[in-house]
Amino acid sequence: MSQDLALYGYWRSSAAYRVRIALNLKGLVYETRPVHLLDHGGEQHAPEFQALNPQELVPCLIDRGRVLTQSMAIVEYLEETRPTPPLLPADAEGRARVRALAQVVACDLHPLGNLRVLQYLTTQFGLDEAAKGVWSRHWIGVGLDALETMLAGNVATGRFCHGDMPTLADACLVPQVYNAVRWKLPMEGYPTIRRIHEACQALEAFQRAAPEAQPDAPPPAG
Amino acid sequence: MSQDLALYGYWRSSAAYRVRIALNLKGLVYETRPVHLLDHGGEQHAPEFQALNPQELVPCLIDRGRVLTQSMAIVEYLEETRPTPPLLPADAEGRARVRALAQVVACDLHPLGNLRVLQYLTTQFGLDEAAKGVWSRHWIGVGLDALETMLAGNVATGRFCHGDMPTLADACLVPQVYNAVRWKLPMEGYPTIRRIHEACQALEAFQRAAPEAQPDAPPPAG
Repeated sequence: MSQDLALYGYWRSSAAYRVRIALNLKGLVYETRPVHLLDHGGEQHAPEFQALNPQELVPCLIDRGRVLTQSMAIVEYLEETRPTPPLLPADAEGRARVRALAQVVACDLHPLGNLRVLQYLTTQFGLDEAAKGVWSRHWIGVGLDALETMLAGNVATGRFCHGDMPTLADACLVPQVYNAVRWKLPMEGYPTIRRIHEACQALEAFQRAAPEAQPDAPPPAG
Repeated sequence: MSQDLALYGYWRSSAAYRVRIALNLKGLVYETRPVHLLDHGGEQHAPEFQALNPQELVPCLIDRGRVLTQSMAIVEYLEETRPTPPLLPADAEGRARVRALAQVVACDLHPLGNLRVLQYLTTQFGLDEAAKGVWSRHWIGVGLDALETMLAGNVATGRFCHGDMPTLADACLVPQVYNAVRWKLPMEGYPTIRRIHEACQALEAFQRAAPEAQPDAPPPAG
């Protein structure tokens, strides 16, 4: 199996983290191919990687020669080609809810805190680290506020975002919480998100997908 | 049918425009419920709308009492509940490609030019209209550069983004081109995108979804 699937990613990339969770939840073995987003002027801009993904972004999944990009499209592809265990519920209404929760993160929240956006804010508008923190916490806060309401106020929320099995929504939520903590966003106002995050972190699939557990993560300080 | 489906949107919202295209391509009749994003401090922030969508964003589709949010999740829902004509190809690889093309727009490109982001850049960093134009053209350009390469360099591209029938990818591309033109991005460098855009605009489903064709669009300047 390890020859079949290979994931180009970066230990701290939120989008790659989502795909790692999905691969692990489905029990799929894959080869890790690190793309260092900061070293050598950004390895994602190198011609070899650009040939795989003209967007010059991770993740990129190789499935027996097929090149797949965009984290959400990759998870949907895995769902269609390796349906067990499912990461989407069986009913259309439930599937729509899980996708909507996932897309709050993937379409509205995460894109604003992406490395390339922070780099542009720095070079174009001269934002320093503190200002980048203000920007990041603002958008993560707006997104998590909405997510907390969507999760806390809905009977379909269970041990996880939707029912009692992890779904695509949890695979998006956990990396976003990682980012929130990294930017020191106070998490007190998000009891439902914190509870679900904790339930996810108890699972080996999430533990093995964590940034610090990746081969390209720097060794722990100290 | 018009009692069944109701779309909360805004004439110039790119995400609502996508859903209008999908509804029209599927031949579905729906009631239009305009949410004015600028008037009255933004009607999307009113308690009645917030109760439907805690994100305070359009679009929001009501299907016989079911409340659906997030444009891409809505289109996937329509695909599952009204499969004919399909807006995704039948094969997993093709579906992954169409979703990835759509998500280049929905996850990486459009979120950066959203009204709320431009409003934040104005109030926090004092960007004027000219600077907002530089910001918008930069991110739309980065996204369209990647899309042009992904489309021009792939044999799966046909009359439309994927083959000879319009898909979810076209439903995302056309509103984004509308935004590009609005921000006066030069389009010469995107021959494939322009050709596909033209093929889409020849279809009634796209014409009827256009911002200027919506009941809440302002009358044309005389």
